[in-house]
Amino acid sequence: MPQHIAVLGGGLIGASWSALFLAYGHSVHISDPDGSADAFCRGFVRRAWPHLRDLTQGLPDHPPLDRLRVSSTIAAACDGASFVQECGPDRIGPKHAMIKEAETALAPHVLIASSTSSLMATDIQAQAQHPDRILVAHPMNPPHLVPLVELVAGRLTSPDAIPQAEAFYTSLNRVTIRVQKERPGHLANRLTSALYQEAVNIVAEGIASVEDVDRAIAYGPGMRWGLMGPHLIYHLGGGAGGYRQYLEHLGPTQQTRWADLGRPTLTDDLIEQLVLGLEQEIKELDTQELEDARDRALVALAKLKQGLPF
Amino acid sequence: MPQHIAVLGGGLIGASWSALFLAYGHSVHISDPDGSADAFCRGFVRRAWPHLRDLTQGLPDHPPLDRLRVSSTIAAACDGASFVQECGPDRIGPKHAMIKEAETALAPHVLIASSTSSLMATDIQAQAQHPDRILVAHPMNPPHLVPLVELVAGRLTSPDAIPQAEAFYTSLNRVTIRVQKERPGHLANRLTSALYQEAVNIVAEGIASVEDVDRAIAYGPGMRWGLMGPHLIYHLGGGAGGYRQYLEHLGPTQQTRWADLGRPTLTDDLIEQLVLGLEQEIKELDTQELEDARDRALVALAKLKQGLPF
Repeated sequence: MPQHIAVLGGGLIGASWSALFLAYGHSVHISDPDGSADAFCRGFVRRAWPHLRDLTQGLPDHPPLDRLRVSSTIAAACDGASFVQECGPDRIGPKHAMIKEAETALAPHVLIASSTSSLMATDIQAQAQHPDRILVAHPMNPPHLVPLVELVAGRLTSPDAIPQAEAFYTSLNRVTIRVQKERPGHLANRLTSALYQEAVNIVAEGIASVEDVDRAIAYGPGMRWGLMGPHLIYHLGGGAGGYRQYLEHLGPTQQTRWADLGRPTLTDDLIEQLVLGLEQEIKELDTQELEDARDRALVALAKLKQGLPF
Repeated sequence: MPQHIAVLGGGLIGASWSALFLAYGHSVHISDPDGSADAFCRGFVRRAWPHLRDLTQGLPDHPPLDRLRVSSTIAAACDGASFVQECGPDRIGPKHAMIKEAETALAPHVLIASSTSSLMATDIQAQAQHPDRILVAHPMNPPHLVPLVELVAGRLTSPDAIPQAEAFYTSLNRVTIRVQKERPGHLANRLTSALYQEAVNIVAEGIASVEDVDRAIAYGPGMRWGLMGPHLIYHLGGGAGGYRQYLEHLGPTQQTRWADLGRPTLTDDLIEQLVLGLEQEIKELDTQELEDARDRALVALAKLKQGLPF
């Protein structure tokens, strides 16, 4: 059933969420104090639409911009909303202020899901009138192309809020996971940081160039991670004995490698080395070309994954 | 120009390399003391052929099994070979024995590339008559579908050997990288281990289930890693200022997350927890179904990547 969704903040993440919500038939009201947000969000939805049509059955040729409104105040965007996706600045002060204003306009049961990547639900809900309806629903950028949504409850979040949010995002063909403890980076960004730490260390130690690290991931293990997570990969690596066999026989080699991983420090010199290496990697390609190619490929990959059993 | 390639060891990796070499017009002679290797390798090539046809232009309908021989001795396989891919047991004793026998049959300039995942080129070449022609060329499994080949020179490897091997693997549409220092796990498996360490830690700390960790990767950051490496991803995450801007502004948040990553120990209890979590994840799916779906998807992803600028 079409809903009216309030999106607080009309930056990249807010615009991408809005495009997704529109594609699933909802109407969207974005709030942003910046007068340029309206043009930016409409332009974003127009550019995203062909990708969304590719991924979603039955969408019209043209984006339904008549179902998109952009207002300067949060209260206006929340008026009549049945779900709120908060995409404001990732600092606690602005979050509290946004929620305070939102609650003046919302019915008490309406969920407020924060897209925060760095804050905790418990802190975000701390000053709310109805803290039980507040949770974290963290996407990967861009949310209209990458399906993952990490759900995290704060201490005061209602037990119903997570299943309710799950049902909502699942209806948008998102893949939700439940993060059971509030920790920096939720879950996906912890994993990303763990990989990145060694990607930096390998350059710092002179084991390989920035370009070769990137090529190694994108033409090696990254191809499997685009399809399966690491536990399932090692289950298949364990032969007939599966994951237990892998862990009992090859677990010790993992433990040895773990002990050899680096703990780099991002000094000014290392930053220079990384930037120089990246310049050698991308050569004359510009950012727009790279982003366009990435988005086209993400669409193709997301389509490819629609038929997988895992 | 078609070459005659010796593949030492007819297990999974040797069979997969052989299928690739055949697809690029070479003739292949596998050595394996196990009498069942012949049937296994022929069956493997037959099953791999439709995937290779999908990825490679102009292949015949049926696998050219007339260009494949399997013998029980290394000397027979190496007779007349212009390149050797060693895929034997990953222990130093068997490697030395295999190389000793291979050298009785090979011209002195013929490269011997070891598929080892855990040994160093310097150790493998230690007792050779012509150590300068020995290097590590480590693939990801299965090599006929995942393009990465990590090249590592030992202390005695000739300066020409790495560029020669690069030219050979590039002619097979592989993506080669140069690992500049001999370290456990070469490069790709260090990165894999870094990610896996935190994937295990998240379960050990009760932050999320095995299934949710796997879904988070495969429907989140893994989708980007299937296309791009982490340095390039953060370059695009840095906006107009690129990688420098990312590192200067968000480098400190990485450093904070790095400090919070876990150092799990694979105790018996943790292994039980991981195996149980994996069973809940895969439910009734069997390994063959999962492998078939993975291989089909890897082919589709490899095809998708053929048109990318990175």
